[in-house]
Amino acid sequence: MVAAAEAWERGFTNPIPTPRPRRRVAVVACMDARLPLFQILGLAEGDAHLIRNAGGVVTDDVIRSLAISQRSLGTREIVLIHHTDCGLQKINEREFRAALQAETGMAPTWSTEAFTDVDDDVRNSIRRVRTNPFIPHRDNVRGFVYEVETGRLREVEA
Amino acid sequence: MVAAAEAWERGFTNPIPTPRPRRRVAVVACMDARLPLFQILGLAEGDAHLIRNAGGVVTDDVIRSLAISQRSLGTREIVLIHHTDCGLQKINEREFRAALQAETGMAPTWSTEAFTDVDDDVRNSIRRVRTNPFIPHRDNVRGFVYEVETGRLREVEA
Repeated sequence: MVAAAEAWERGFTNPIPTPRPRRRVAVVACMDARLPLFQILGLAEGDAHLIRNAGGVVTDDVIRSLAISQRSLGTREIVLIHHTDCGLQKINEREFRAALQAETGMAPTWSTEAFTDVDDDVRNSIRRVRTNPFIPHRDNVRGFVYEVETGRLREVEA
Repeated sequence: MVAAAEAWERGFTNPIPTPRPRRRVAVVACMDARLPLFQILGLAEGDAHLIRNAGGVVTDDVIRSLAISQRSLGTREIVLIHHTDCGLQKINEREFRAALQAETGMAPTWSTEAFTDVDDDVRNSIRRVRTNPFIPHRDNVRGFVYEVETGRLREVEA
């Protein structure tokens, strides 16, 4: 990865002078290795904020990132992307916490955000955005499921 | 972006059957639109977890994602990437919170994680990982600054 970055630097010709995303959109998606978001969404450098965590779930840290994205860096739309075969669908919240507690002697303050139905979880994340007053622009929020088996991006109706 | 995703689906030929990243690495980076991580790091689909938020800061939600990445999905190394000209360097924590409170009538439970020196903030994030017992594999943690002006990825010594 370091060698690849050195090759990237040698070919680097086009610095973008502003952190404000050209398409004024923030994408919230899962960290899964099978989601090359630039390619899937046809993004170029400078186009969009990409926020990613386990599940693509809207947590307080995602709210922090979206608040900064909209209030300081000019984005106006939000796209949420969960996906099929997500690691979070295979986690048992109770067992995961018990294992952490057994190993470290303490329980985490956070939930794993494990879920079962991916469509339901997209709707859950849409609602967390739409009800959060720290995000000023909540009219343009759309949620999708990316199918890792077929490459299809399918919209979920809120 | 939806049209791009339809073109992506038509060209999709190579489903990857496992969520376990091939290179067994998780990358934590800023959401900034100028960081095309697949290209910079020479990643292919299926190679690595990408965790991104405002700043690439190690927050509790990043700890959650890293814990799941290592405990459930087999990653063993962590790469942290902050960058020059970050939006978080231009935010005044006190003013940002005051604006939120004035507008919504309440203060957030979270910090913006604003910082001034990017190298110091990488070291701060390295320490947050290295001291967190919920992450089992903390020996291979490296931190970098990506220079958006030159395309250079520069390592920061912890």
